[in-house]
Amino acid sequence: MSTWDEFNPVFYPDSVAVIGASSDFKRLGYHCMSSLIMSKFKGKIYPVHPSLPEISGFKAYPSLKAVPGKVDLAIIAVRISLVPSILNECVEKGVKGVVLITAGFKEIEDKAGAELQDEVAAIANPANIKIIGPNTFGMVNLHANLNASFTPEFSLTQRGDISLVSQSGGFCHLMAPLAMVEHVGLSKIIGVGNRCNVDFADILAYLADDGDTKVIMMFVEGVDDARRLFEVASYVTRKKPVVAIKTGRFRAKDKAAYSHTGSLAGKHEIYIAAFEQAGIIMVDSSTELLDVAKALALCPVPKGNRVAVLSGQAGPAIIASDICEQHGLVLADFSAETTKRVEELLPPLSMRSNPVDMGPTWYDWETIRKVIEAVLADENIDSVVLYAAYASANRPLLKELTGLLKSPTYGKPVISCFPSPPGVWAEEKHELEESGVVLYPTPERAAKALVGLVKRSQIVNRYS
Amino acid sequence: MSTWDEFNPVFYPDSVAVIGASSDFKRLGYHCMSSLIMSKFKGKIYPVHPSLPEISGFKAYPSLKAVPGKVDLAIIAVRISLVPSILNECVEKGVKGVVLITAGFKEIEDKAGAELQDEVAAIANPANIKIIGPNTFGMVNLHANLNASFTPEFSLTQRGDISLVSQSGGFCHLMAPLAMVEHVGLSKIIGVGNRCNVDFADILAYLADDGDTKVIMMFVEGVDDARRLFEVASYVTRKKPVVAIKTGRFRAKDKAAYSHTGSLAGKHEIYIAAFEQAGIIMVDSSTELLDVAKALALCPVPKGNRVAVLSGQAGPAIIASDICEQHGLVLADFSAETTKRVEELLPPLSMRSNPVDMGPTWYDWETIRKVIEAVLADENIDSVVLYAAYASANRPLLKELTGLLKSPTYGKPVISCFPSPPGVWAEEKHELEESGVVLYPTPERAAKALVGLVKRSQIVNRYS
Repeated sequence: MSTWDEFNPVFYPDSVAVIGASSDFKRLGYHCMSSLIMSKFKGKIYPVHPSLPEISGFKAYPSLKAVPGKVDLAIIAVRISLVPSILNECVEKGVKGVVLITAGFKEIEDKAGAELQDEVAAIANPANIKIIGPNTFGMVNLHANLNASFTPEFSLTQRGDISLVSQSGGFCHLMAPLAMVEHVGLSKIIGVGNRCNVDFADILAYLADDGDTKVIMMFVEGVDDARRLFEVASYVTRKKPVVAIKTGRFRAKDKAAYSHTGSLAGKHEIYIAAFEQAGIIMVDSSTELLDVAKALALCPVPKGNRVAVLSGQAGPAIIASDICEQHGLVLADFSAETTKRVEELLPPLSMRSNPVDMGPTWYDWETIRKVIEAVLADENIDSVVLYAAYASANRPLLKELTGLLKSPTYGKPVISCFPSPPGVWAEEKHELEESGVVLYPTPERAAKALVGLVKRSQIVNRYS
Repeated sequence: MSTWDEFNPVFYPDSVAVIGASSDFKRLGYHCMSSLIMSKFKGKIYPVHPSLPEISGFKAYPSLKAVPGKVDLAIIAVRISLVPSILNECVEKGVKGVVLITAGFKEIEDKAGAELQDEVAAIANPANIKIIGPNTFGMVNLHANLNASFTPEFSLTQRGDISLVSQSGGFCHLMAPLAMVEHVGLSKIIGVGNRCNVDFADILAYLADDGDTKVIMMFVEGVDDARRLFEVASYVTRKKPVVAIKTGRFRAKDKAAYSHTGSLAGKHEIYIAAFEQAGIIMVDSSTELLDVAKALALCPVPKGNRVAVLSGQAGPAIIASDICEQHGLVLADFSAETTKRVEELLPPLSMRSNPVDMGPTWYDWETIRKVIEAVLADENIDSVVLYAAYASANRPLLKELTGLLKSPTYGKPVISCFPSPPGVWAEEKHELEESGVVLYPTPERAAKALVGLVKRSQIVNRYS
């Protein structure tokens, strides 16, 4: 059975049981029920509770065995001592996947936790039950209206093409709100937790074949089976872009390790290099992770590293140019034809090479459009950073550029940044974003998103 | 006459003339009038126009001479050929300061621009007229309800303690919207433009004595009189924190210089070192500039570099810890007393040293409060990063922490990050921010803001 066949019923289940479902706000099982309801899950929902006849409006069952139909996915949020027997019930019931929210396994100081985790895996593995967790917040598949987590508000995330696989549930609780604020659509949000029998490599392999995932984001603290991860990643990155953050968890967690930072930091550096060797785009922050993933989801991959920066203001153009150069992009010379055209269009009042300061013709939208088009058509240019800050005198600018930006030509990415006071240019930006135009709030973030895109082009070129 | 005496009437004028005032939306003079009106300027407003009797509801005058009263500040937005004669009129009228919006001076390719700029300075200098510009968007003083710029929406910026001095007007049009979105209050926003006779050093010296400025942000592209700037900055940073971005403009602007990047990049590095030597906190991005300035405006300066990271989730705690360590902060050991206290309070399920993962006691606000208080009281700790992401089960958390966060004790900075879906925890965050609690949207930004605060403590310690 292929990885896809094994995992697809877990992420697209027909029926979900919540073991530990509760009507008590203080129990995670209560929130798990709320999550399924808030996500408008269309399949069967079976709360399992020893005594209650009904939970959150759904008929409850005293045990998994008592559930009338088949159960594809079981969400388990019970006290830890009950977990092995529940897992045995899952085996009997023919459950395909488990979200094991219960904590207290390998992550605790007491060795009993690790032993219990091994016991759980030993029960699940012969039956080929895939366990997300333990010690996870759960997982969410926005394309299946499935919020199998203890946080109902994940259901509010916009549906999109970007999936997140994270070792830390806390990181998912950071990224989903960020995605909401930044209007970025997500596909699956998966907290792998302690990785009992489902590791990063498994999820990557599944997502590589998932039709609803175009870009994969990863948050990694530590790697157990590095060789397998890098092998699988090398395969997956041929099909889809993977962007990742790796933290140096060891440095701070363990005081003994902490005092040997040098060697361990070195180990961390080796990991980063191995990730990059496997074709993964490494980034430095949660914001950059989302920004790069958004660009990868929405923009064509540029052919090379030659960028043009076109700006309504010189200062921010220099900021963006600095970042591009710092990361190996080239502010390329325009072709003779483009140079001539730009010099015809713009008065000799400011920078007319690359970056271009369109400030002096700031209010002449027709000219600005012509400059952008000339540069996009230039065979010396692979991508464009377009910057224009709001000033009341140029209020019509964004509306005037909408047509050009919404109908991308030349197959080149245009990364845009249009800072404006809240409420101003809001409709225009909304319309642009709805049409798939990528916008960032600062020139630094726009430039770094492009850097990510160019890294992807290098990976694609490496494989082709 | 002191710098303060010279500049204060420019930034707190009783009367403002707008030369080039217009009723035509396409003219900057129209927008300058709108700016003064939108900012609710309380002093006299005198539009100057050759023929119109009234502009934007204000009686207009055919010349500056014809204005009945004194004029402290003249905003000039006329075509360049008229500027020298207008400046002569300003001298006659006893104007104290000029915002010279007109462009086409030293920044253009034609040498005539630089010559004209010298001519303008030669007229203004003997009369001691301070010129903001030329080639500037203007300046804004939110404490004087004065928007002396061509962008009325600057008036919407929240009033606060942070002033911005920028070589680039474009950068001001980036930072003011950012400040609005991030709810950061600004004091003065000053575009020094071509720096005809008012340079960074002059503005720094004035702001050092300005009662409405607590923190100074700078955006620098190139420095003309480096020695003077660093001398003045060394003095100013003894009194107030200065945070700055320096771009490597030369690298991209001039193709000849661009091809010698090596030596020039070296020059850039020397500048950065000189800025830091002068006690200026250097940052890498517009977002970081605002984040650090906000922390400096609202937090006590920590005594040293020993930080505690307290978190509801391990992953983001590691992210913050990584950044702190990377920038020379120390995740210090707690005192024996604090260690004992934290181990009494938290179960042995996760990290209980530093960083502390409070996840296992996530829903027990009383315990979380006690942990925070124990760590704040620890003499081994100078500052705290507090992180807690929203989950529906911990919804009451932020309300429960409000009292503790609003009444800072121990004089130590607490930098907080409480990610949540839009609309959730919104009231709580608003209340906290209204009370001066500093919040950031990601653990990276929180940690970097603290790094800026610790840099300030090192500068303060250097001087004391």
